[in-house]
Amino acid sequence: MITLSSDFGSPYPAAMRGVILRTSDARLVDVSHSFPRQDVRTAAFWLREILPYFPPAVHLVVVDPGVGTDRDAIVLRAGEHTLVGPDNGVLVPAARRLGASSGDSSADLDSFRIVTRPSEAVEEPIGAWPPVRSSATFHGRDVFAPAAARVHDRTGSLETDPGLDPVETIVELSFAEPTVGDGTAVGDVLVVDGFGNVITNVPGGSVDPDTKTVLVDGAPAPFATSYAAVSPGERLVTVGSHGYVELAANRGRGDEAFDVSPGETIQLEWSGE
Amino acid sequence: MITLSSDFGSPYPAAMRGVILRTSDARLVDVSHSFPRQDVRTAAFWLREILPYFPPAVHLVVVDPGVGTDRDAIVLRAGEHTLVGPDNGVLVPAARRLGASSGDSSADLDSFRIVTRPSEAVEEPIGAWPPVRSSATFHGRDVFAPAAARVHDRTGSLETDPGLDPVETIVELSFAEPTVGDGTAVGDVLVVDGFGNVITNVPGGSVDPDTKTVLVDGAPAPFATSYAAVSPGERLVTVGSHGYVELAANRGRGDEAFDVSPGETIQLEWSGE
Amino acid sequence: MITLSSDFGSPYPAAMRGVILRTSDARLVDVSHSFPRQDVRTAAFWLREILPYFPPAVHLVVVDPGVGTDRDAIVLRAGEHTLVGPDNGVLVPAARRLGASSGDSSADLDSFRIVTRPSEAVEEPIGAWPPVRSSATFHGRDVFAPAAARVHDRTGSLETDPGLDPVETIVELSFAEPTVGDGTAVGDVLVVDGFGNVITNVPGGSVDPDTKTVLVDGAPAPFATSYAAVSPGERLVTVGSHGYVELAANRGRGDEAFDVSPGETIQLEWSGE
Repeated sequence: MITLSSDFGSPYPAAMRGVILRTSDARLVDVSHSFPRQDVRTAAFWLREILPYFPPAVHLVVVDPGVGTDRDAIVLRAGEHTLVGPDNGVLVPAARRLGASSGDSSADLDSFRIVTRPSEAVEEPIGAWPPVRSSATFHGRDVFAPAAARVHDRTGSLETDPGLDPVETIVELSFAEPTVGDGTAVGDVLVVDGFGNVITNVPGGSVDPDTKTVLVDGAPAPFATSYAAVSPGERLVTVGSHGYVELAANRGRGDEAFDVSPGETIQLEWSGE
Repeated sequence: MITLSSDFGSPYPAAMRGVILRTSDARLVDVSHSFPRQDVRTAAFWLREILPYFPPAVHLVVVDPGVGTDRDAIVLRAGEHTLVGPDNGVLVPAARRLGASSGDSSADLDSFRIVTRPSEAVEEPIGAWPPVRSSATFHGRDVFAPAAARVHDRTGSLETDPGLDPVETIVELSFAEPTVGDGTAVGDVLVVDGFGNVITNVPGGSVDPDTKTVLVDGAPAPFATSYAAVSPGERLVTVGSHGYVELAANRGRGDEAFDVSPGETIQLEWSGE
Repeated sequence: MITLSSDFGSPYPAAMRGVILRTSDARLVDVSHSFPRQDVRTAAFWLREILPYFPPAVHLVVVDPGVGTDRDAIVLRAGEHTLVGPDNGVLVPAARRLGASSGDSSADLDSFRIVTRPSEAVEEPIGAWPPVRSSATFHGRDVFAPAAARVHDRTGSLETDPGLDPVETIVELSFAEPTVGDGTAVGDVLVVDGFGNVITNVPGGSVDPDTKTVLVDGAPAPFATSYAAVSPGERLVTVGSHGYVELAANRGRGDEAFDVSPGETIQLEWSGE
């Protein structure tokens, strides 16, 4: 199984599908091709939250504002999962969580650099029809998709794959940690989802579950376990499906109701009642 | 085969795909994840029109504004098809049509409640990696997708599935019937599709096929069998692919050309010439 | 394998998927359903650029402003690929490139008309449940998808398929050729992609690779091999992944930075330094 993730919209992902299917029978499953364009951090967040729900797979990820520069193209091994994409941090939070889920508490990831000159590195070229053109602007098609197909079809032999070189250092990416006190938390807005739900970095377990009202930047909002617990249009604070505190509105958009955007800091206060 | 339908946009459907694929080899086919958010009626219309084109399958549907409340999660059996989703009516028009298509003229649907506490009800938990967290806000991932996978892999034994309880009453949903007279019809706009075609509830067969002009709320428009029968930008009345009267514009948007929206009532008059 | 391409958005492609899967086990792969509505030329461009990356397949394409008129429904055989869609030119550039890629230098395409009355032409009707209704407005579902499934499952016998009649003339579609001189080119903007990259018809090889600056309609812009070679927001001229000169902006939109739209003519000048 190969999952596909990108900020490509349409129709570029189809070229990646075609390239993979030229050489592989892998099942292809889309994660998303609608990540905000060139927004490495948001893609990294969603991949960390979603990829662990998949069975062991090769995860192809292309959110790559540095395409064509000398940033490496890498393969990470995390537990039984393998991630393929640019070395800009986008793979890292997902890889660490997948590694931890598999019981690898050290969470040291095996890292490999993709050798991007197929004519030298690949025993059998991907095929001359069409010839592999390594464009400078579409490594999803020309580098990452062929690499994902190769890795998929040879899983288990990454160390000896002539298309891969071990590397020791990769670009890190992490999300800020919140400051959680006694009845208070100061956190960041990580992302806003398509419904307008505002996902923070404050763990849901921080908030006393008996809490009825949370002060968000000083203004009160009900603390509830479901959107429908408040009237349509009303705002609420809840623990979302990722386990974090979310700001939402029943049948409305939390980002508008609370007037917050990704990257902003928010202050929460509760008293357990 | 499991079809997937939701109002999730992206990337949430991927979590449902992953959860299913952890336990099932089912072929996954997307119906749509772009249904208008939390619009149960519009989703119900499209599912009724589209699911009957599929071979027997499990249809997973999550348009669920009541997620986290005490609304039931249900499984309906309709002919050789099985539908899984919230008990808010979204499954019902499709299920009745699938049941009728299969020759079950009574169209009484077998209904089951999903037992949503996996730890008690499921013989083999979905797997501890990641553990099943039953969030209050994403039952698509935590309740419906695992249920669809279970139902798919055990089709035929719904009555004895320990994850399902028979129920007798489900939430109904039906669309208004038009009033069709001799050369007139008063109907409702059910939905507007992505092209701007205005789909009414007036059966196409109501209109005399020799009709050249239809009065729509008193204003004349050509009655034609194809968009291209009128000049680009011009409006027309046609019988659409669902068998209903549609208001359209050649290479334009019917909703704008006729200035109508879903839920509005329209009056049609024709004289068969 | 059957690939699917349309301008349908959502949810209409699902009806095509269902119709195919009623009779075929073919792997379904989406190319795009987001082509600009009824824009035959733009779809034709993308199909020409993307389909050659696929292994031999049946390619179902429905961008069909003439649906319901007397335009033919056709099947083209191009090398080991087969294309199914309306006879409006949308298939032609892709088919010619696929034919040429397979070594068929004549690039004369075998062309067949789809016999659209299944009750007469098809040995075994698609199935009476639901009956095949040949609507006048959704031939994707009613004509092209069943034809693609039939062609897929009987590949190799197009000449003897009772659902197909040979035809000799099809609607042509080609893109304008640029005028390339010594250090100059006058070309057209073919399409703008989702990132805002402006794709012209000027072959990238026309521009001296040592060029540092290109005058675009008289105004200078850096000639670079990657977006990130210029500062964020700055514009550049590059050779894109399709092999053509593109106008772009690093982490921005080239169409806005250069203020150009599809169909416009642009003049390029360079001196190789």
